[in-house]
Amino acid sequence: MTAPANATLPTIDTHIYPRGGLDILSRAEVAELADASAGGLHDLLRRCALAVLTSGSASDDPRAAQELYPDFDIQVHQQDRGVRIDLHHAPALAFVDGRIIRGVAELLAAVVRDLAYTAIELGADGARDLSSSGGITDAVFGLLRNARVLEPADPNLVVCWGGHSINREEYMYTKEVGYQLGLRGLDICTGCGPGAMKGPMKGATIAHAKQRHRRGRYIGVTEPGIIAAESPNPIVNHLVIMPDIEKRLEAFVRLGHGIVVFPGGVGTAEEILYLLGILLREENAGVPFPLVLTGPTASAPYFEQIDKFIRLTLGEAATARYTIITGDPVEVAQRMAVGVGKVREHRLAQRDSFFFNWSINIPLEYQRPFVPSHEAMAALDLHQGRKPHELAADLRRAFSGIVAGNVKEDGMRRIEQFGPFEIHGDPEMMASLDALLRAFVEQRRMKIAGDYKPCYRVVA
Amino acid sequence: MTAPANATLPTIDTHIYPRGGLDILSRAEVAELADASAGGLHDLLRRCALAVLTSGSASDDPRAAQELYPDFDIQVHQQDRGVRIDLHHAPALAFVDGRIIRGVAELLAAVVRDLAYTAIELGADGARDLSSSGGITDAVFGLLRNARVLEPADPNLVVCWGGHSINREEYMYTKEVGYQLGLRGLDICTGCGPGAMKGPMKGATIAHAKQRHRRGRYIGVTEPGIIAAESPNPIVNHLVIMPDIEKRLEAFVRLGHGIVVFPGGVGTAEEILYLLGILLREENAGVPFPLVLTGPTASAPYFEQIDKFIRLTLGEAATARYTIITGDPVEVAQRMAVGVGKVREHRLAQRDSFFFNWSINIPLEYQRPFVPSHEAMAALDLHQGRKPHELAADLRRAFSGIVAGNVKEDGMRRIEQFGPFEIHGDPEMMASLDALLRAFVEQRRMKIAGDYKPCYRVVA
Amino acid sequence: MTAPANATLPTIDTHIYPRGGLDILSRAEVAELADASAGGLHDLLRRCALAVLTSGSASDDPRAAQELYPDFDIQVHQQDRGVRIDLHHAPALAFVDGRIIRGVAELLAAVVRDLAYTAIELGADGARDLSSSGGITDAVFGLLRNARVLEPADPNLVVCWGGHSINREEYMYTKEVGYQLGLRGLDICTGCGPGAMKGPMKGATIAHAKQRHRRGRYIGVTEPGIIAAESPNPIVNHLVIMPDIEKRLEAFVRLGHGIVVFPGGVGTAEEILYLLGILLREENAGVPFPLVLTGPTASAPYFEQIDKFIRLTLGEAATARYTIITGDPVEVAQRMAVGVGKVREHRLAQRDSFFFNWSINIPLEYQRPFVPSHEAMAALDLHQGRKPHELAADLRRAFSGIVAGNVKEDGMRRIEQFGPFEIHGDPEMMASLDALLRAFVEQRRMKIAGDYKPCYRVVA
Amino acid sequence: MTAPANATLPTIDTHIYPRGGLDILSRAEVAELADASAGGLHDLLRRCALAVLTSGSASDDPRAAQELYPDFDIQVHQQDRGVRIDLHHAPALAFVDGRIIRGVAELLAAVVRDLAYTAIELGADGARDLSSSGGITDAVFGLLRNARVLEPADPNLVVCWGGHSINREEYMYTKEVGYQLGLRGLDICTGCGPGAMKGPMKGATIAHAKQRHRRGRYIGVTEPGIIAAESPNPIVNHLVIMPDIEKRLEAFVRLGHGIVVFPGGVGTAEEILYLLGILLREENAGVPFPLVLTGPTASAPYFEQIDKFIRLTLGEAATARYTIITGDPVEVAQRMAVGVGKVREHRLAQRDSFFFNWSINIPLEYQRPFVPSHEAMAALDLHQGRKPHELAADLRRAFSGIVAGNVKEDGMRRIEQFGPFEIHGDPEMMASLDALLRAFVEQRRMKIAGDYKPCYRVVA
Repeated sequence: MTAPANATLPTIDTHIYPRGGLDILSRAEVAELADASAGGLHDLLRRCALAVLTSGSASDDPRAAQELYPDFDIQVHQQDRGVRIDLHHAPALAFVDGRIIRGVAELLAAVVRDLAYTAIELGADGARDLSSSGGITDAVFGLLRNARVLEPADPNLVVCWGGHSINREEYMYTKEVGYQLGLRGLDICTGCGPGAMKGPMKGATIAHAKQRHRRGRYIGVTEPGIIAAESPNPIVNHLVIMPDIEKRLEAFVRLGHGIVVFPGGVGTAEEILYLLGILLREENAGVPFPLVLTGPTASAPYFEQIDKFIRLTLGEAATARYTIITGDPVEVAQRMAVGVGKVREHRLAQRDSFFFNWSINIPLEYQRPFVPSHEAMAALDLHQGRKPHELAADLRRAFSGIVAGNVKEDGMRRIEQFGPFEIHGDPEMMASLDALLRAFVEQRRMKIAGDYKPCYRVVA
Repeated sequence: MTAPANATLPTIDTHIYPRGGLDILSRAEVAELADASAGGLHDLLRRCALAVLTSGSASDDPRAAQELYPDFDIQVHQQDRGVRIDLHHAPALAFVDGRIIRGVAELLAAVVRDLAYTAIELGADGARDLSSSGGITDAVFGLLRNARVLEPADPNLVVCWGGHSINREEYMYTKEVGYQLGLRGLDICTGCGPGAMKGPMKGATIAHAKQRHRRGRYIGVTEPGIIAAESPNPIVNHLVIMPDIEKRLEAFVRLGHGIVVFPGGVGTAEEILYLLGILLREENAGVPFPLVLTGPTASAPYFEQIDKFIRLTLGEAATARYTIITGDPVEVAQRMAVGVGKVREHRLAQRDSFFFNWSINIPLEYQRPFVPSHEAMAALDLHQGRKPHELAADLRRAFSGIVAGNVKEDGMRRIEQFGPFEIHGDPEMMASLDALLRAFVEQRRMKIAGDYKPCYRVVA
Repeated sequence: MTAPANATLPTIDTHIYPRGGLDILSRAEVAELADASAGGLHDLLRRCALAVLTSGSASDDPRAAQELYPDFDIQVHQQDRGVRIDLHHAPALAFVDGRIIRGVAELLAAVVRDLAYTAIELGADGARDLSSSGGITDAVFGLLRNARVLEPADPNLVVCWGGHSINREEYMYTKEVGYQLGLRGLDICTGCGPGAMKGPMKGATIAHAKQRHRRGRYIGVTEPGIIAAESPNPIVNHLVIMPDIEKRLEAFVRLGHGIVVFPGGVGTAEEILYLLGILLREENAGVPFPLVLTGPTASAPYFEQIDKFIRLTLGEAATARYTIITGDPVEVAQRMAVGVGKVREHRLAQRDSFFFNWSINIPLEYQRPFVPSHEAMAALDLHQGRKPHELAADLRRAFSGIVAGNVKEDGMRRIEQFGPFEIHGDPEMMASLDALLRAFVEQRRMKIAGDYKPCYRVVA
Repeated sequence: MTAPANATLPTIDTHIYPRGGLDILSRAEVAELADASAGGLHDLLRRCALAVLTSGSASDDPRAAQELYPDFDIQVHQQDRGVRIDLHHAPALAFVDGRIIRGVAELLAAVVRDLAYTAIELGADGARDLSSSGGITDAVFGLLRNARVLEPADPNLVVCWGGHSINREEYMYTKEVGYQLGLRGLDICTGCGPGAMKGPMKGATIAHAKQRHRRGRYIGVTEPGIIAAESPNPIVNHLVIMPDIEKRLEAFVRLGHGIVVFPGGVGTAEEILYLLGILLREENAGVPFPLVLTGPTASAPYFEQIDKFIRLTLGEAATARYTIITGDPVEVAQRMAVGVGKVREHRLAQRDSFFFNWSINIPLEYQRPFVPSHEAMAALDLHQGRKPHELAADLRRAFSGIVAGNVKEDGMRRIEQFGPFEIHGDPEMMASLDALLRAFVEQRRMKIAGDYKPCYRVVA
């Protein structure tokens, strides 16, 4: 164990020989991997690896790990026999008596695997057409298959969404829901990190142990932009790093057989609009997709606001696609179990695969990244009368832009420079949006430094 | 689901077909099982089954379950194909959507299996000689083998002892020790129930998940007298019900490859004296047996008292058999890992089995139940100058008697009737014993109604 | 490798540590095992072990092995860790580069296991009542369970009977039938040895490989009197040594879900009469038991004779219990597959176990060994008008006696001393029996030195 | 079951859903597969599938199957859930009671998998560079990995070469060698088909059963040109179809950890020269590669001739690379076991993979197909003084050409049209070659119609 002078925490130098998808590579592939990880990929790899190596530590400050382990480095080397990962000044907390924790080594291999796949297969020289909807879906499929999370088993995967800074009551509730899902043989997929991402996995782990459900899957789907802030909790046994937020969202929708949404902030609202926007398309009218919004009884007002906002913007019809349940984990789990059963029947009838939801239609506008420039924000069209799924797409973008303008470095700089975004929309709709955001601030679901000052203004 | 008028909690009527040791029985054996469970065994079976069916529920009041489920009943039936267990008015909390939780069903089968084995194999018609030391050890072996906890795998089983009503800081500490043991690939055996019996298993479960140690064993060894009060926590995946306390203690010593003792009450002190009494025998001088007494830093005074008492009574030499570590779970786990390694070497050298400690010598006086009558207590000889292991045996009996006189129905009645026990001993030793007991009372480690009033008096 | 001066073949001295049923024994059990194997059991153990160690060798002369390996010895030793089997001057052909073939080691462990079980559990001190029908059945069950051949899986075990000195055409036919059975997922149980005992296993092995039926069971059920002459062929992966011929026959009937009979000699005729005698009992009228007599087309006359004899002696009704198929392995296998399916349904309906046929009634007269003295033979009552199952029992005994009088040392001596047996029977029945025996002689199914001279004479 | 008027044998129409590499495909991949199999691939697929479906049948006449099943057809269909293979008029012998034999279904899936991989990945649009040595090796690797025969397990794979029309004594010998290899835990790889390709697998199967080596691999590596004539025998549990003979030869060399050569014809001689040519390169001087030429004692003259020819042409030094053993299967197996052990050590020292021999150098001239035109044959340079590995390459080509000129349709036509090939070579070397070929004819190792008439003449 080495403790370099300028580091505050003990570190270890070592190397590991990863398995599971990295064990049978050709010499050319290993060389490509080593090259890629030395070039532009290196900094990304370093950050993601550090997130995994500090997995389970208390802090969720993305910079903290970087500052605590300033000398950490990772290199992928080619050896004829396979891949060797060298770790320098790696956090000692990932080791036991000098040997790396096996689960951490697996997650580390997953990082290398997914970043390499993205760089090589989805890069400039790759064969994928990332400008078409089908091509993007194929890329999502390719990544998930390469990560070995596609299994021809019976549908049982419930995706859990929600905030990572929820209160203790809400956290305990997510655990109980996970427990009830686990008792019914359901596996869990979340976005990694603490809060509503961790609670359901913990609960399901205990339930799976009780039910002797030995092959429980705890899938974490993340992306490079958030892995540092939301490092995979210790329970995750399948980690996938998607290249961007849109592909991550598509992965959730195509992998999961149902979704449970816990309380969260603007990010969670954005996710709900993304999903409803898709489900409200005519093409998806016949596709079953159990969707439950839930929290402890005390969270009822939160969901009332969300519900109200959806009714106002997307119309009453949209509410047919989700159920709100408060304070009843058993009811949530039972509803998901029944819903997943219907998904199974539908897949059989449609001869669709159990492991990837090919039938659901996700249009290109939901797949292409949205960059919230002033022009893009001004181009949004938030008026009544549009088709719900089109309006949902623009509303989602509006939320994305507001998040950026409020808290992301890039967006905040733009606001300082060019003033608030101008958003065109119906006054009523805009007032409702405003009310929702203010409520999030009050409920401390948004991290705001100082007073809340909207980063946009409404233009009728 | 039925909800009988006179019950406060929902119940279910059902029947299960158990597996795992109960699946290949002869017709005669099934008949014997059904007979036994209908006769004298029935009440015992009913109580133990109820403990398992309420496993994981909050209360640790043995009578609570009986009162909450007054109509609960269990019957074992013979069917040519095998055993059928009928449950009447069983606690609904053991079921999910009408189906019994699989782990609960397994524990239930374990109850039937062990009570039947005891009744049939160790009963009047059985072939075992329970009056000899070897015969008793054989009975312990037979029960454990029949329960399928003997495995010819590498030594890795750590027994954890300690109180079941410990404070939160102590509980968190036991969890952390279990976690550190689990990280090192060690499995856990405890006495079932909450507190120090549950914490290490929970911690080890998380560590085993991180280390992908998929076949972790969480063995609970209990006996009919305490199972109701200390029902098996949900993590236990191997449950064994020994016929009495002495056989349970022997099971711990022969099964475990090392023992960790957390803070506890008089019961824990009794266990320490039992173990030291055995380890101090000349016959066992060469038998390695890692023994660590540990707790959070705040528990240091507790262990100082214990240590002082042992030094005074059993002599300085006794301290060579244990290590006290406070506030350092990593140190505890490392020491156990090293110690278990030495046990492995010793077994290989001695050609002793890995799964059962045949070499350790347990004399008949430690195997025969001690009934604390006034005569038996008066016959104890607590004077300096005796061989440490003989003195330890009598000290253990003294503790046993005091526990009975203080809190057990039987013992309390005797004290009321005949006055306090008379104990013969050195004044210094007796003063030290007195101090220890008062400390337990102050630290709330003994459940005393009203003021503490010693149930014994010293006779020099 | 040692090559003692007086041995003609190379031998090896070694010791093995057996597993699988011998790996978790108590010290007392190991001691008992070592004792038993040193005492009266020693010669038996030595002979059976030698049969296993020469398994697969060409010769079927029981004395050959003894003469080729005159110095061979085996000892079972107790070591605290378990059982050690010492082999002295063991046939080198059971070893590869000095290491014992793993399958041979398993069969060797099976020999020790079964002889010990018989000596200890069924011996004078054992708890079994071997004078009652139920007690004998329990002993058969106990032995089979201890040998781990009872499995709660779907019925699929076909017993194959037939001669071990059949001609090549018949042998190839048994292989083809085994192949067709194996293609249908059926496992094979035979009596060990060459000929009709080996062919079906070989055929099934190839079929199981083609069907990827990876856990195929090739069960050999033998007894000490014949294991030397019919040593287990290499394919047997479960070997059971029953204490005597009657328990071996009962094991076949209770284990198997159907029986195929190939051409054979008097022994095979005896087996057919044993089985028909049982199946014709009123108690067994409702018990389904697929029974097919089969051979290549050229064997048709053989089965015609058998059939004629049965019709004459047991009556037309008896023929309802079997089907004769010649030259059609596919038809045989299909019929067995359908028949086993009906057995499955019957077991479910009767709640009988899949792995042991408890429902079939085997009376004590079929379970007790028959010793063919002149008195016993004279007491047989082979007249029309008796109940078929009673007549079958006596016919079976008659065959047994004739075999003994013709070829067994004991029986031949008695005939020399006291003259031919006198058998009382209907002239027609006796003529038929005579014809059958002469046909066996002509077809070379009986080993007769010199001219055939009947060892009995008929007394009306 | 349908029996069309114009077919001589019963057939079946059915469809199967393959698994194992074909079970998790994207929609685009399935579409590509269906397209490819409908286009140019269709006839190839049809022929290979028919070979698999008639696997294990007696005939080795490639046209026989086509004539017996003239209406057989196969189609690959896309279904959202995956791949469906439709079979029309498929040979009934691949089915049992209407259900396809599971092993046959697996081999069928392997055919589709490999032909599709070749068409899609190695086709015009694929990313591979098939004009470079490295690119070809990568293609071989890619095919083998896709076929899941690369496993990071300990080296134990022995390749067996030899003729498919060997005599019975030779066949029994190959079986015995396979048995001895299997007893030592070695797996078998051959070229599919009967004779020396089947014997070793059969022998190893029995040995693996005896050694309880349950995961034995019987790998068949074939190519479209020979699969019809040498259809995979029933024991093959991994089938790979390489695109051409050169890639098939490279697959043997990179997959195998040692090679055993049994007697064969010109083809076998060609294989020996291919391998020696590679092993004699300076680059491969340090690469261990156990190579044994073996047959029954009666085959000694065969190997003497081969040996003599090698000494004369490639020099004495070449003989260091192989060992000739006759009539001693145990010696063959022991030598392979030791040799494979050295390969293991070398791989470890070189950090080369266990599952693919990257270190061995195979130059482009051995990888590119040789087309035996008169020009190409005239360009061969068979004179003393060349480097052995260069001479070996040309000798191999000479054999290839002679085989073609003698028995292949194409080559025979060229000879008729343009007269015999002119080969330039040392008289002594050419005389030796001539003698070798005449010996093959005499030993009936070449199929010649009428008198043998050389298809070449020597030009000094």
